[in-house]
Amino acid sequence: MALLYLSTPKRAAVWQKVFADVGEEMVIGEDAVKDPAAITHIACWYPPVDIARYPNLRVVISVGAGVDQIPALPGGVQLSRTVSSQIDRMVREWVVMATLMLHRGMATYIDQAARQVWQAHAGTAMRETTVGIMGTGRVGLPVARTLIDLGFNVCGWNRSGRPVEGMPVYGERDLDRFLGQTNLLICLLPLTDQTRGLMSSTFFEKLPIRSRLVHAGRGAQLDMDALHAALQEGRIESAMLDVTNPEPLPQGHWAWSDPRVIITPHIGSVTDYEEGARHVLAVIKADRDGCEIPGRVDQNLGY
Amino acid sequence: MALLYLSTPKRAAVWQKVFADVGEEMVIGEDAVKDPAAITHIACWYPPVDIARYPNLRVVISVGAGVDQIPALPGGVQLSRTVSSQIDRMVREWVVMATLMLHRGMATYIDQAARQVWQAHAGTAMRETTVGIMGTGRVGLPVARTLIDLGFNVCGWNRSGRPVEGMPVYGERDLDRFLGQTNLLICLLPLTDQTRGLMSSTFFEKLPIRSRLVHAGRGAQLDMDALHAALQEGRIESAMLDVTNPEPLPQGHWAWSDPRVIITPHIGSVTDYEEGARHVLAVIKADRDGCEIPGRVDQNLGY
Repeated sequence: MALLYLSTPKRAAVWQKVFADVGEEMVIGEDAVKDPAAITHIACWYPPVDIARYPNLRVVISVGAGVDQIPALPGGVQLSRTVSSQIDRMVREWVVMATLMLHRGMATYIDQAARQVWQAHAGTAMRETTVGIMGTGRVGLPVARTLIDLGFNVCGWNRSGRPVEGMPVYGERDLDRFLGQTNLLICLLPLTDQTRGLMSSTFFEKLPIRSRLVHAGRGAQLDMDALHAALQEGRIESAMLDVTNPEPLPQGHWAWSDPRVIITPHIGSVTDYEEGARHVLAVIKADRDGCEIPGRVDQNLGY
Repeated sequence: MALLYLSTPKRAAVWQKVFADVGEEMVIGEDAVKDPAAITHIACWYPPVDIARYPNLRVVISVGAGVDQIPALPGGVQLSRTVSSQIDRMVREWVVMATLMLHRGMATYIDQAARQVWQAHAGTAMRETTVGIMGTGRVGLPVARTLIDLGFNVCGWNRSGRPVEGMPVYGERDLDRFLGQTNLLICLLPLTDQTRGLMSSTFFEKLPIRSRLVHAGRGAQLDMDALHAALQEGRIESAMLDVTNPEPLPQGHWAWSDPRVIITPHIGSVTDYEEGARHVLAVIKADRDGCEIPGRVDQNLGY
């Protein structure tokens, strides 16, 4: 039983120490594999091209929170994504910050400051705002709680419409009703076949005019041209994006210079190396003990 | 018993309706005063120059949250500042937003976006941050609760060192100890003789290096040259200011173009006109009933 590690040398240095402390074996890089049959777990962002080379592979573990970069695995191989309270807390911080920034008109004030203009705009904070959160999981729920505590109206959306305590939740069939009452939309969805390209012009048309968008899902969920059109027609008033399409956002892209759009370079969460290593150890242990592995991904749903 | 109103026509229009609804008398502007002896209450930002003209004046009510613009009143005249849950909520929103913005390195990301640079900086969010809140009143307390809930270490400071549940609080004599452990300082203090010019170079020297500053008190509490020097020497890493010195911040001021400083034009709170009118009615009623007036200011302390 051994882990094959396929990631950066910097991360490897931290992991080696954590693995050595508990006497667990870790092979760094495919070139170092002597016996492919000994490899039972692979930790990676992109898995090996020839994954069939490892006949006894049991689990592939994404070193990040997302698994959309991992193609279909051979039958019987499980998939785990790195889950950690650190990731959850960081994304929550970013989303609460972005929500308050759009709510308080920071796109305008950042633009004014660049032109050295001191001008307050009354009313931006007074209006009633309903925040709609797409994705009510490990991050969406604490985000909802914080925003409710701050005084926002909050509702949620998830595929199945699974109810959540403390706020109304809509499901797949009620998407139009959900969007129709959302003044500030937060996207926290994983990238799946269902969510790829989700935020299109028909999607944006369902929002009330002068809505705002906070995007912390995946870039490929957002049609940037549709966003541009929605901004031009006033359907969307401002947007804050931590993920873009394409990503990184290239020099000269319209979104960089649009004063209604605030960009951060995918900083929502950064996996702490040590927490990542501990997650992999927990997966190996659970697998050995015959328990459900932490961060297990349903490969049909994609999350 | 009548109220003399000395503020903007726009606010007056809203107040008149609120006063008419409850049958309370309101005189708009000094020119409309027929009998100065009938005036018992004055609502204003700046009080009349010849306040001795009103022999039966009982209470002066600031139409804002601050009273630092009101000079010493004749003996026996009480002072009230407008308090409202709306103001408290708005300032809390701004302060939580500003704290998260500095904590997550937004000064850098706003600067990078202006140059169309996509570059994440690891670690800014990982480091442990102790937030020190100066002012533990109607706004400071809910700010502390929200920040504790988000995962920050929080401590407070108030003049008397009056303890507060859920966090350590320091008093006047322990200012150095308070500053020495604060990585992110929030100023919510009222402007008084004691706090004017408080944030000076000797003050900043007591902070750990690479500290951050969120200022939502009053501009005159901050020595902007000292802030500039503290930024230059790395004592302060970034600052977010809703109040400045002078205010409005003039075109060409160094703070506008310093990428480490984020400026908003005194938007922390805006008094809702109707809530302001209701506050004045509550003051008049309490005074009539012989009860303590809401928003009462201790004129020796200045808050």
